[in-house]
Amino acid sequence: MNPAAPRPAEPSASAQAVTELLERSRALTTPALRAAVGRLAPPMDTVAAYHFGWIDADGRPTEADSGKAVRPALALLSAEAAGAAAEVGVPGAVAVELVHNFSLLHDDLMDGDEQRRHRDTVWKVHGPAQAILVGDALFALAGELILAAGDDATAARAARRLAAASRQLIDGQAQDIAFEHRERVSVDECLTMEGNKTGALLACAASIGAVLGGADERLADALDTYGRHLGLAFQAVDDLLGIWGDPRSTGKLTWSDLRQRKKSLPVVAAMAADGPAAGRLTALLTADAKKSREEFEDFDEAEFAARAALIEEAGGRQWTADEARRQYDTAVGALAGVELPAATRERLTALADFVVVRSK
Amino acid sequence: MNPAAPRPAEPSASAQAVTELLERSRALTTPALRAAVGRLAPPMDTVAAYHFGWIDADGRPTEADSGKAVRPALALLSAEAAGAAAEVGVPGAVAVELVHNFSLLHDDLMDGDEQRRHRDTVWKVHGPAQAILVGDALFALAGELILAAGDDATAARAARRLAAASRQLIDGQAQDIAFEHRERVSVDECLTMEGNKTGALLACAASIGAVLGGADERLADALDTYGRHLGLAFQAVDDLLGIWGDPRSTGKLTWSDLRQRKKSLPVVAAMAADGPAAGRLTALLTADAKKSREEFEDFDEAEFAARAALIEEAGGRQWTADEARRQYDTAVGALAGVELPAATRERLTALADFVVVRSK
Repeated sequence: MNPAAPRPAEPSASAQAVTELLERSRALTTPALRAAVGRLAPPMDTVAAYHFGWIDADGRPTEADSGKAVRPALALLSAEAAGAAAEVGVPGAVAVELVHNFSLLHDDLMDGDEQRRHRDTVWKVHGPAQAILVGDALFALAGELILAAGDDATAARAARRLAAASRQLIDGQAQDIAFEHRERVSVDECLTMEGNKTGALLACAASIGAVLGGADERLADALDTYGRHLGLAFQAVDDLLGIWGDPRSTGKLTWSDLRQRKKSLPVVAAMAADGPAAGRLTALLTADAKKSREEFEDFDEAEFAARAALIEEAGGRQWTADEARRQYDTAVGALAGVELPAATRERLTALADFVVVRSK
Repeated sequence: MNPAAPRPAEPSASAQAVTELLERSRALTTPALRAAVGRLAPPMDTVAAYHFGWIDADGRPTEADSGKAVRPALALLSAEAAGAAAEVGVPGAVAVELVHNFSLLHDDLMDGDEQRRHRDTVWKVHGPAQAILVGDALFALAGELILAAGDDATAARAARRLAAASRQLIDGQAQDIAFEHRERVSVDECLTMEGNKTGALLACAASIGAVLGGADERLADALDTYGRHLGLAFQAVDDLLGIWGDPRSTGKLTWSDLRQRKKSLPVVAAMAADGPAAGRLTALLTADAKKSREEFEDFDEAEFAARAALIEEAGGRQWTADEARRQYDTAVGALAGVELPAATRERLTALADFVVVRSK
């Protein structure tokens, strides 16, 4: 499925380039990430290693799916954007991964999510206290690491971007939780929440490597804007996949976000539309919101399919696909006004292509 | 009660000076702390205001006990130690308070503590998710604030001290949790845990103001050492009060730490001693450790009193009082080798006196 295919030309060559890019970033980042996590006091090191998929619940080494690695890839490209070697971006890549995983550990506990990447979440395996504690430790470690990168001025600039992104990430989670209890959420509110929850850390990833590589604020800010809108494009695609994604690709249940009554972009855009489909959808979802979790879990496939059909009929699917494309255009457009090595510009564009055409 | 009265001379004059010092630090720090907390996205601002005792559970303004304010007082004195105005230390004082309160929010939830300073804890009132989230937000805010203080080099130096202290604080909590599940803990392990959990943040408070005031690393390190050992003295006194403190002063139950089966300094020192009392104590506590929480809560006063008597007979109380005095001496001694304004040196000593003679 291509929810928002942005450009018809050469998808396979671009996809191949991105695969190589993500592999390179894993190869450069993972050893540094493992070394950082190895510094945690026991048993936090073990709990963190489980979370990252390096060991199973019994402590045996595994090769679990460790995620797409888009953030570290961005941080390394960001260093290259400043004319530095990719390696210069590694502390930024590691710090951003640590912050991202801090938020996953805490969000899974707050949201009561029992599974992540086909495995039991940390709080299910090691208990809530360890999920809180190890999340805290990863967040603290991120700050320590970035402050040890480069000279004082560089470290302060990089750390400021990381700290601001972290706070936005937390604001986004607060908004996400608050929206669950509200009947209506506007499209603007949803975009603000997604900008905080997804955009801020991608903006940080896309700019922090450049800061470490000695870029001026103008280049770093352009990369930040690219990353922020890439994050919003990523999230719009995620919201499409959360409803219409193929369970075989996503690893989630069918109609996943509808089962969680998530007020994602397609839902809020559909509810904001005029016409009978929007009206019927709003009436259904308002009634759904009053149901208990148990009642809701008894719904059959046809009931979710009906809601998805109404969202599509009201234009929520198309609006979100268009929004992904708009955010993609803004992201790539932000790079138009700055000097970049040609190969880096190509790779940043290829990564943006990958983000909007992915199927998981 | 004076668990470890360090010096006989002029307790009342010194106590008066400390009261003024703590009042000054509250007056300087609280507005900045309130402004910082006010920047949090709703409803986190409200939850944090409840935690700090500025509003009650229904949102009405209150004047609850907001704690001793030793940490902010240290941060302001620290700036004066570098020859700067106390105000220069305010961002450090606020950042340290934010980190301290982040850890309280998370620790109360991890430990299942329902009361703090005679009020329901945040997770009891606002739920576990808000306790996690607001803790995260305060921690993130601390980093942002300190990175905005002073020029790049100053901000980086101050932020590094805060980040290192935060990670030690989290390590200490990890050790504290791990000790609960162990039959024996050595005195050294207990001191390491307390050094992390209490010493590190007091060390940071005592040095961060000086860094903001432009001190060289030698002075900042001496103040750090002072703060670390002051923290260990503080904790030794806390451990004495946790068993023998007067409930009317501490606001806790009698034998509070024994009720929680805490392996505090008097307990581990007594268990490490030779002789029949140590043997009987160890046998009792080993049996206690196997009991359920419910069985244990049915204990009557006499059973806790018997354990406290054995700890005292085995020398755990005296050893801890001596240890408080040793840590006090090391703290004050760390300042001997550095140049300080005379008034600041007096105040740092008075604060150390206050910490070891307090009764709550």
